[in-house]
Amino acid sequence: MHNPRLTILGCFSASPKANAHPTAQLLEMKGHLFLIDCGEGTQIRMRQQKAKFSRINHIFISHLHGDHFFGLIGLISTFGLMNRQQDLHVYGPNGIKEIIQLQLKLSKSYTQYQIHFHELESLAPQIIFEDEKLSVETIPLHHRVYTNGFLFKEKIGERKLDFEAAKNHKVSHTYFSLAKRKKDVVNLDGKTIAYQQITLPPDEPKTYAFCSDTSFKPDIVHQIKNVNLLYHESTFLEEHEDLCFKTKHATAKQAGIIAQKAKAKHLVLGHFSVRYRNLEKFKLEAEEVFSNVTLAKSGLTISIN
Amino acid sequence: MHNPRLTILGCFSASPKANAHPTAQLLEMKGHLFLIDCGEGTQIRMRQQKAKFSRINHIFISHLHGDHFFGLIGLISTFGLMNRQQDLHVYGPNGIKEIIQLQLKLSKSYTQYQIHFHELESLAPQIIFEDEKLSVETIPLHHRVYTNGFLFKEKIGERKLDFEAAKNHKVSHTYFSLAKRKKDVVNLDGKTIAYQQITLPPDEPKTYAFCSDTSFKPDIVHQIKNVNLLYHESTFLEEHEDLCFKTKHATAKQAGIIAQKAKAKHLVLGHFSVRYRNLEKFKLEAEEVFSNVTLAKSGLTISIN
Repeated sequence: MHNPRLTILGCFSASPKANAHPTAQLLEMKGHLFLIDCGEGTQIRMRQQKAKFSRINHIFISHLHGDHFFGLIGLISTFGLMNRQQDLHVYGPNGIKEIIQLQLKLSKSYTQYQIHFHELESLAPQIIFEDEKLSVETIPLHHRVYTNGFLFKEKIGERKLDFEAAKNHKVSHTYFSLAKRKKDVVNLDGKTIAYQQITLPPDEPKTYAFCSDTSFKPDIVHQIKNVNLLYHESTFLEEHEDLCFKTKHATAKQAGIIAQKAKAKHLVLGHFSVRYRNLEKFKLEAEEVFSNVTLAKSGLTISIN
Repeated sequence: MHNPRLTILGCFSASPKANAHPTAQLLEMKGHLFLIDCGEGTQIRMRQQKAKFSRINHIFISHLHGDHFFGLIGLISTFGLMNRQQDLHVYGPNGIKEIIQLQLKLSKSYTQYQIHFHELESLAPQIIFEDEKLSVETIPLHHRVYTNGFLFKEKIGERKLDFEAAKNHKVSHTYFSLAKRKKDVVNLDGKTIAYQQITLPPDEPKTYAFCSDTSFKPDIVHQIKNVNLLYHESTFLEEHEDLCFKTKHATAKQAGIIAQKAKAKHLVLGHFSVRYRNLEKFKLEAEEVFSNVTLAKSGLTISIN
């Protein structure tokens, strides 16, 4: 299984512009393709990235500000036009179901596939999706409206086959999957081989934390401790900290502090206000407190490791 | 006053793609800048055309299919972010108010400017906007949901000054506006000058008919008789007439027949299905019955004369 990969579709705040797309991200993890937020025009960005629309079964919406969800109804309609059959799960704040269903009703465009709305209202972290390979939990944030970030956590996987060792120990390939699941096996000579002899420890499970939009909220640190990749909003630079207070956003430096306190491996900054021409300043500001910083950019793909 | 001008922002049906934008048009007529339909991403097209957002006070939505209105909430929000103060008028089918207001409410983004919703439900043509210079009336169409086209009609204007004649007749410029309003005036020698001597007849009032989406509906012909510019949808070519029947759309040839019967001066075709690679066929098909045909294209501006 590959490392998870995050693709930025849009990373600017407020109104969409030709070269400043609102928030949307694709996360490929353990065979899933998750869509996180869906600003206006997200489906066009997805086409540009040649994303397989049919692979998206779960959409996570952080909050009901337009730059994070105005593209959702269009994408849901497009799924319908594509004759989608499989169920779709949408996770987002209370009210999201009403918004989508009202538009589908008035346009007489009820979808032939089923949409399951998972409406959120808890102020505490909760697991909202889980299977045998990963879990997704909310990260309660602090913004002008009810907002959640999302923490995507791989579960520890099977041990990995040491092909060379298995060959040397004369273990038939029919036993490989057993050994990977920590069972000792019998080789072609009838001898018992401990699973540790022919397998290696599993990959470290990877984690991704998406935190947008929010004011500086250090109490999320314990939840995202040691996260492999942290996306944290940085709408403003320190020089506009007063605007953060008013609009409930964060600065690049504050994002850096969160990354540093959480001992994150890698920080991606985004949700830039379009007032700034030189985004490099965001990187410099966060680097004052945290060393591994990347600026989000439409089309950028980051391997999570 | 200039001739009215139509700018195509988008002219494809169904889902937006990077190079196939859904329906939206800007009509500049008698000092107004009208927006007609507003598919997803329209505000980005407007920026690309350098349209003055603040000049738009009236938005006309033909029907509640996504490719004609999913961009409206984003534009309304952007007006808010731009700190718009002047009122906005939105004309569209019943339900449009609920859709917009629900989203503004849930995102706690009530606008500081006032939005007047003019919800339509009549099946007969009605005048929905009028001032001293023009009127706008609905053209009831036939589609899968309640749909109106819109007929924009200039009123006959003032007579035009014949500057050379006015000079020759020694008429002071302070009398020009009186003469343009058909009043005889007194010249510098104290002699009465008939207004006809120093003015020319006013320009012929121009008309624009927007007809999308609709199946072939010849009973609109009497309403749009002699229209200067007719935009008529042509989702399909004749080879797919069966799809027209099913989806309540028209072919290029049917659009040509409407233009020919209405004795329109100029026909613009649009709302093309993305199934076609060669749009030139639409032009050829309409030209079988009507000679002055243009294919809509994002960014195309047409002078109405």
